[in-house]
Amino acid sequence: MKYENLDSLKAFKELKEEKKPCLKELLSAKRIKESSIKLGGGLKYVYAAEPVDERIIDTLQKLSEEAHLIEKYRALLGGEVMNTGENRLVLHHLTRGNVLSSKIEKDGEDKEEFYKGELSKTKDFSEKVRSGEIKGSTGKCFKSVCQIGIGGSDLGPRALSIALKGWAEANKIEIIKPYFISNVDPDDAAKVLEELDLETTLFVLVSKSGTTQETLTNRDLVLDKLKKSPIKGFDASKHMVAVTSKTSPLAKDSSMLTSFFIDDYIGGRYSSTSAVGAVIISIAYGFDTFKSLLEGAHEEDVLSNEKDIKKNGAMMDALIGVYLRNVLGYPSTAILPYSEALSRFPAHLQQLDMESNGKHVNRFGEKVEYPTGPVIFGEPGTNGQHSFYQLLHQGTDIIPLQFIGFKKSQQKKDIVTSGSTSQKKLNANLSAQIVAFALGKDDENPNKEFDGERPSSLIYGEELDPKALGALLSHFENKVMFQGFLWNLNSFDQEGVQLGKVLAKKVLSGSEGDEVLKAFADLLIEEK
Amino acid sequence: MKYENLDSLKAFKELKEEKKPCLKELLSAKRIKESSIKLGGGLKYVYAAEPVDERIIDTLQKLSEEAHLIEKYRALLGGEVMNTGENRLVLHHLTRGNVLSSKIEKDGEDKEEFYKGELSKTKDFSEKVRSGEIKGSTGKCFKSVCQIGIGGSDLGPRALSIALKGWAEANKIEIIKPYFISNVDPDDAAKVLEELDLETTLFVLVSKSGTTQETLTNRDLVLDKLKKSPIKGFDASKHMVAVTSKTSPLAKDSSMLTSFFIDDYIGGRYSSTSAVGAVIISIAYGFDTFKSLLEGAHEEDVLSNEKDIKKNGAMMDALIGVYLRNVLGYPSTAILPYSEALSRFPAHLQQLDMESNGKHVNRFGEKVEYPTGPVIFGEPGTNGQHSFYQLLHQGTDIIPLQFIGFKKSQQKKDIVTSGSTSQKKLNANLSAQIVAFALGKDDENPNKEFDGERPSSLIYGEELDPKALGALLSHFENKVMFQGFLWNLNSFDQEGVQLGKVLAKKVLSGSEGDEVLKAFADLLIEEK
Repeated sequence: MKYENLDSLKAFKELKEEKKPCLKELLSAKRIKESSIKLGGGLKYVYAAEPVDERIIDTLQKLSEEAHLIEKYRALLGGEVMNTGENRLVLHHLTRGNVLSSKIEKDGEDKEEFYKGELSKTKDFSEKVRSGEIKGSTGKCFKSVCQIGIGGSDLGPRALSIALKGWAEANKIEIIKPYFISNVDPDDAAKVLEELDLETTLFVLVSKSGTTQETLTNRDLVLDKLKKSPIKGFDASKHMVAVTSKTSPLAKDSSMLTSFFIDDYIGGRYSSTSAVGAVIISIAYGFDTFKSLLEGAHEEDVLSNEKDIKKNGAMMDALIGVYLRNVLGYPSTAILPYSEALSRFPAHLQQLDMESNGKHVNRFGEKVEYPTGPVIFGEPGTNGQHSFYQLLHQGTDIIPLQFIGFKKSQQKKDIVTSGSTSQKKLNANLSAQIVAFALGKDDENPNKEFDGERPSSLIYGEELDPKALGALLSHFENKVMFQGFLWNLNSFDQEGVQLGKVLAKKVLSGSEGDEVLKAFADLLIEEK
Repeated sequence: MKYENLDSLKAFKELKEEKKPCLKELLSAKRIKESSIKLGGGLKYVYAAEPVDERIIDTLQKLSEEAHLIEKYRALLGGEVMNTGENRLVLHHLTRGNVLSSKIEKDGEDKEEFYKGELSKTKDFSEKVRSGEIKGSTGKCFKSVCQIGIGGSDLGPRALSIALKGWAEANKIEIIKPYFISNVDPDDAAKVLEELDLETTLFVLVSKSGTTQETLTNRDLVLDKLKKSPIKGFDASKHMVAVTSKTSPLAKDSSMLTSFFIDDYIGGRYSSTSAVGAVIISIAYGFDTFKSLLEGAHEEDVLSNEKDIKKNGAMMDALIGVYLRNVLGYPSTAILPYSEALSRFPAHLQQLDMESNGKHVNRFGEKVEYPTGPVIFGEPGTNGQHSFYQLLHQGTDIIPLQFIGFKKSQQKKDIVTSGSTSQKKLNANLSAQIVAFALGKDDENPNKEFDGERPSSLIYGEELDPKALGALLSHFENKVMFQGFLWNLNSFDQEGVQLGKVLAKKVLSGSEGDEVLKAFADLLIEEK
């Protein structure tokens, strides 16, 4: 199997030469009904408002074959070293099930068994916490769980926690309230700690390497507060567990109640379905909730193994994204969930996408001559409509859009006003926006004219439940993976974050010999 | 005074022909010390890491003069109809003081007196709520205040509320906890209402027109819950005030405890310093806190009236932004506050900037031939470092960056670990990032190579207090205003949000005659 740059693929050259279809001509009720692909968790992906006609879709299919997308996905699933830069396998799919049913042996163990084992530990532990069998040091049941982690140990689990809250409430699931501390800014920890009753809080410390500066610093801040607790009999070591790798310094830390393990084959931004997400979500909302999430993700992983792009939503999404980026030249993409529960999902996708594919060298370390990962941003609708949509509709650049919506609200605490429910108003707005962006509107006054031709996709489902959420998560993970294959990147390392770390250390040790660094540090760091 | 398109200005043509300076050659300790402009509220704006040398700065100065930036600012301050499309004055500066000391008479009243009067009403009311003189209907003091509003009635006040919390706590100011409901998604209201004790909550309903669909819908949801309250003697009309215009249907609504007024000359995204922000912030954190914020904003407004761009941070920032956008061709800008308290400030700036300048016609309704407002996105550092910074460092596009930082944390709940405080680590990271982006790093392995030449600015101060926050807000408002002048836009209307509203109404009345609209609505809206 060959790894080639996008611009050396025949189908890509063809794609560039195809006539560019016009959305206003393409879009019809018939097309909307027919341009839909089943995803996992009961979701559907609709590409009716994307500027791709049958001819282009055929070429995208050819592109997928020439780029060996499915073969590369299967190689990844099968345990090849896909993260070449770091010489690592890429096994996050295995945390939610085995798509190929091939055994992956590595480091002397069966990796599927390893992940299953950690999941089973999580089940056991979370059930004991929730039942009150495991208590805080003063004999009280835990009422809050607080994750300390940053980046992949924060954004994904946090987005999922927020997304599940309304569903859990509506389904009368007892909630152990989830909190997160991530930023090294001490005001972050201060803000969260103030809300917590330490006697009834369990902390989950998450760092794969066990060396993340922010996370260890926040652990120390928390431990300092725990140890200073005036409460009689309070014992900090009964209030913290770790999620880390077996080889990390944290793994042997006796000040922890217990530890859950991940390994080097789960990248931070892909770790939500590993122990990194499992521990806090199972404690907060129950293990069954997390298990449903895994099922939804696995369903989507299985569907992503389909060669026909009209049956593979993640691959179609990836290919259309590359068409928008590399043929039409659009530099950014907005993620627009019409669901308040998904308020932090765009921030997770921002990391997932921009950290995976924001690269300018291919997997062999050669500079590529085409744009790769776009800027990703987004906020929930309808809020965004009253904010940045002005630019999306009438700005000088075209921004491709990814809408997400659900027929039902999570909580169903809704009433009819002015003839419709809030949920109906929400989705009336969503439908309206897709059409407004695609078709625009003529007007004699150019200031009230809408050019249209703004492409968008839609992912929709009945309701945002754990299974749908898992499938949504996996959909975007797999989309990003396929795009990495198309751009011929290693989507699984992040060398771009290293330089800042090195220079920050240099500042902390006095910036010696670096006048520019010292001059900036002098502006910002107080003399003592 | 002439209103001309950017590309017809002589200085702009010169600018495009100037040699493009290289950051690696420009940046020095000396330059860092010298490239700093005093802003209001004790802040400074540093442009040392922007790719502009003295020759370009001279041309930017000429550009500012040829585009009559100061004259246009003074015309706006003086009450000219700067929002031409809607035939309105633009008077948000007047809510925090009079920069020119000229009297603005309009609609038969002195506008300065009008804004002062509303502020004085806010002072009186908020003090009575805080002292307990004004109580809920069952005789309990208010402990929470919840704003119902969307867009400009939400993002700015919400960002400011979050930003002030840590400062207020550290300064032992009693807090009446602020909450916000904005999205028409019923799960938004459900989530917030669940946290509120209705007996001790005061709602602030904010809609200038009094007709905003989301806001009226959420009011109805809240009133429904209030009216169904089983508490004896509970009276919903004692729990809601309005912020609206005198001519709106809400102004005469007898179900309100009282009303505070704004007018058509305060655009939503510029309304944080009007009653839209004043009422909730004065109730939550005390009137003096809000007054300090106004003072900071006014200081920056005064400094923005300086002709020398080396003494006018907002204007310099605007001009450099146009250089980055229209000469260097960069399509987006990241806002990166190294302050957890500013976690939602980027979302406010996203609206402020993208809704103001995301336009493709000039103030005369003619299409412009150059890019206008960029995509704005951002998250707090150091969180972003573990997320999308990979793309910022090593992606194929260059994204200009705007850093914000403070020497001191708000809460000062900080300890020394591994030789430094959290705050020092935070700012070591910030200094390191500026240098890493500008200078990059060579490496034999191209995957570990950083090209550098990523431009950034820095706004910094001692501490994020109300005055600094006000100045920061005004800085960006004035930057966006100056950029609008440069692009020859009307930055004060938002015609681009209208089409979606019209089509959403059409969906709610059955999408008759619009098959495409109906087909999308059918996917998303449940049959009843």
